[in-house]
Amino acid sequence: MTSEVQRKGKLAKAASYILNIKTTCEKNIALTKIAEQLVLDQDDLIAENAKDIAMGKEKGMPASTLDRIMLNKERIEAMATAIELLVKLDDPVGQLLERIEKDNGLLIEKRMVPLGVIGMIYEARPNVTIDAATLSLKTGNAVILRGSSSAKFSNVALVASIHRALEKTSIPVDAVQLIEDTNRETAKELFHLKEYLDVLIPRGGKALIDLVVNEASVPVLETGAGNCHIYVDQTADYIKTERICINAKTQRPSVCNAAESLLIHPVWFNEYGTQLLTALHHAGVTIIGDETVCAAVDFAQQSTEEDYGTEYLDLTISVKLVENVFEAIEHINKYGTNHSEAIITEEQLVADTFLNSVDAAAVYHNASTRFTDGFEFGYGAEIGISTQKLHARGPMGLPALTSTKYFVHGDGQIRE
Amino acid sequence: MTSEVQRKGKLAKAASYILNIKTTCEKNIALTKIAEQLVLDQDDLIAENAKDIAMGKEKGMPASTLDRIMLNKERIEAMATAIELLVKLDDPVGQLLERIEKDNGLLIEKRMVPLGVIGMIYEARPNVTIDAATLSLKTGNAVILRGSSSAKFSNVALVASIHRALEKTSIPVDAVQLIEDTNRETAKELFHLKEYLDVLIPRGGKALIDLVVNEASVPVLETGAGNCHIYVDQTADYIKTERICINAKTQRPSVCNAAESLLIHPVWFNEYGTQLLTALHHAGVTIIGDETVCAAVDFAQQSTEEDYGTEYLDLTISVKLVENVFEAIEHINKYGTNHSEAIITEEQLVADTFLNSVDAAAVYHNASTRFTDGFEFGYGAEIGISTQKLHARGPMGLPALTSTKYFVHGDGQIRE
Repeated sequence: MTSEVQRKGKLAKAASYILNIKTTCEKNIALTKIAEQLVLDQDDLIAENAKDIAMGKEKGMPASTLDRIMLNKERIEAMATAIELLVKLDDPVGQLLERIEKDNGLLIEKRMVPLGVIGMIYEARPNVTIDAATLSLKTGNAVILRGSSSAKFSNVALVASIHRALEKTSIPVDAVQLIEDTNRETAKELFHLKEYLDVLIPRGGKALIDLVVNEASVPVLETGAGNCHIYVDQTADYIKTERICINAKTQRPSVCNAAESLLIHPVWFNEYGTQLLTALHHAGVTIIGDETVCAAVDFAQQSTEEDYGTEYLDLTISVKLVENVFEAIEHINKYGTNHSEAIITEEQLVADTFLNSVDAAAVYHNASTRFTDGFEFGYGAEIGISTQKLHARGPMGLPALTSTKYFVHGDGQIRE
Repeated sequence: MTSEVQRKGKLAKAASYILNIKTTCEKNIALTKIAEQLVLDQDDLIAENAKDIAMGKEKGMPASTLDRIMLNKERIEAMATAIELLVKLDDPVGQLLERIEKDNGLLIEKRMVPLGVIGMIYEARPNVTIDAATLSLKTGNAVILRGSSSAKFSNVALVASIHRALEKTSIPVDAVQLIEDTNRETAKELFHLKEYLDVLIPRGGKALIDLVVNEASVPVLETGAGNCHIYVDQTADYIKTERICINAKTQRPSVCNAAESLLIHPVWFNEYGTQLLTALHHAGVTIIGDETVCAAVDFAQQSTEEDYGTEYLDLTISVKLVENVFEAIEHINKYGTNHSEAIITEEQLVADTFLNSVDAAAVYHNASTRFTDGFEFGYGAEIGISTQKLHARGPMGLPALTSTKYFVHGDGQIRE
């Protein structure tokens, strides 16, 4: 018997061949219809979402998780607004990247094309259902969504709404598939669905992403974990340093581009260390420090080796003194997750050394790590932040959902 | 105890941090020294290679494999010449891809950077040792080479020669690592060497590539298999068709961009089928055909379902009649390997339908599939041909060996 994953995979693949020749106009009409339909269906969406929330409460889920699952009128309208903004973005598909004319008359054009079928495995948030479906459609891709059981009713309702919208358009309804069975086995099936999946994107916690990266034999776009550092150099300006550290740690501690570790030059620490740590402390941050840090302020807790590799995702930061920029680089390349890394210094040469040598998607000089984000970078949309080095690195906008294809136009040319 | 793979992985990673800030000039000097050293060391290289050849003969290896392993004066000089050409190519590292100025004064630059450490698993050919090492160095990457036991003496001698050359330069000798133990276990270790490897590239037969793709948890750049088709449409010009079919099948049948399957429109087949099949037959090609083909010429053998999925890599071709371009597209998307696919037609609209709908790295109108090649496309160098859709697709030149990095320059900016 064919499984749900196999069956929907096959339908998505077939739809992808129709989708990849649809015009930008056709895709934009479909997106607009989806935005309208979500607002039309909001009562139903909120009612179905309430079942997930009730189930979550019964299971004793934390309030923060319930909040991430919750849909209300404002959030549904925000989804619709995001789709209307997506409509306005340039369609990367078809864009000419290279044009090679050969002496024999052969014309080779390298153009952006859809990836084909995108698989998305994610946790709690139902808004990822809408993001993934609409970004995929905009770029001419079919999508297979595999959300979590905690948002099952919401996801089913959202995809039903998308299907109702697509029925009124030239875009095949099969372009958006939801795997309704949230059993662990359906995720595993997706890991190896080579026949139908062109890429699998996990979005969620470290455990989910590690599982996908380690197990999947289909190509994976790794998103994720951010153990981000700020290195405060000898010549760092105090005002900038305090602003950046407070912002990077406290503005939204639960996200991947928040700072988790502070490395400080000893000379700077002697002059400003206590002041900075006190400011962080007053901002509600728990300080986990090395011996010098613990000796300087009484509110710091002693760090262990493990702390340097920990992404707290909370109002906690580890603080360590390092001899100089080279030790900072070495520490970051050892403990970092190649996400976002910052240096604060007034010396350009030191900054350049840091920026060039730290191995990360985004490296910052005198700015907060919190800017690593598709919207902040001006891409208008984001499917996630890549922490790997292949295909896409850092915030992934629409071009990250495309591949390329060489179109070769000849008149009988053969290879001599 | 640390294994050879772990130990050399660590050395390569450390070298990669030094390499990624080396200037183009420093890298080019190192490449030039390697070219010189190979010529200087040629007697030694040939002597070591002779041991591999002797061992291969003892094991009863086919002459074609022995020829691929064999090194002589001309081949070593050709290696040196290829390196000199590589020196002249533009260095992609540092190239500015995007420049974003934000209203708050933040300057975001997206630049090409080395991948870090490239792992290369390959069969027989010792020239891959030199190609992989020099292309990696040119792009600022360290490389871990894992060749096959059949070229072990040659590979050890070639890498020793590279090391002798690097000792005279500012490029760390550790940038090029050879795993000398060619036991199957060392390959498996590379599959999971996440700590030190940024990408793994397999080059060789389908079995090797499938193994790497299915087993590896490190990112893989899949190269390889080419089950390439030529679809001859109703309006195809006979002269072009014969030229292209003969070229694509016979010019070098053992390579991945050679044609393996011919799909023919029935109306065209009625008029020219026998003539084309006879021409292929006279060129030494074995014809494996469907019923209509077998009824038309007596030298054709009956095809089976299996033939359509077979990459013969030999003077054999499968021939099948298809109703029209849509059936051709469907057949290719079912049996193809997304490598190179051609249509021969005088109708532009039919050509466009084919080019847009066939899912392959390179699609051809009225030209031979044999052109899918980094040198033919004018890239000057090639590390392989990607048949996947992430990162790089089709012939991979130097840019395929880079990643990107966002350099963010601020003056105290925080996220509001």
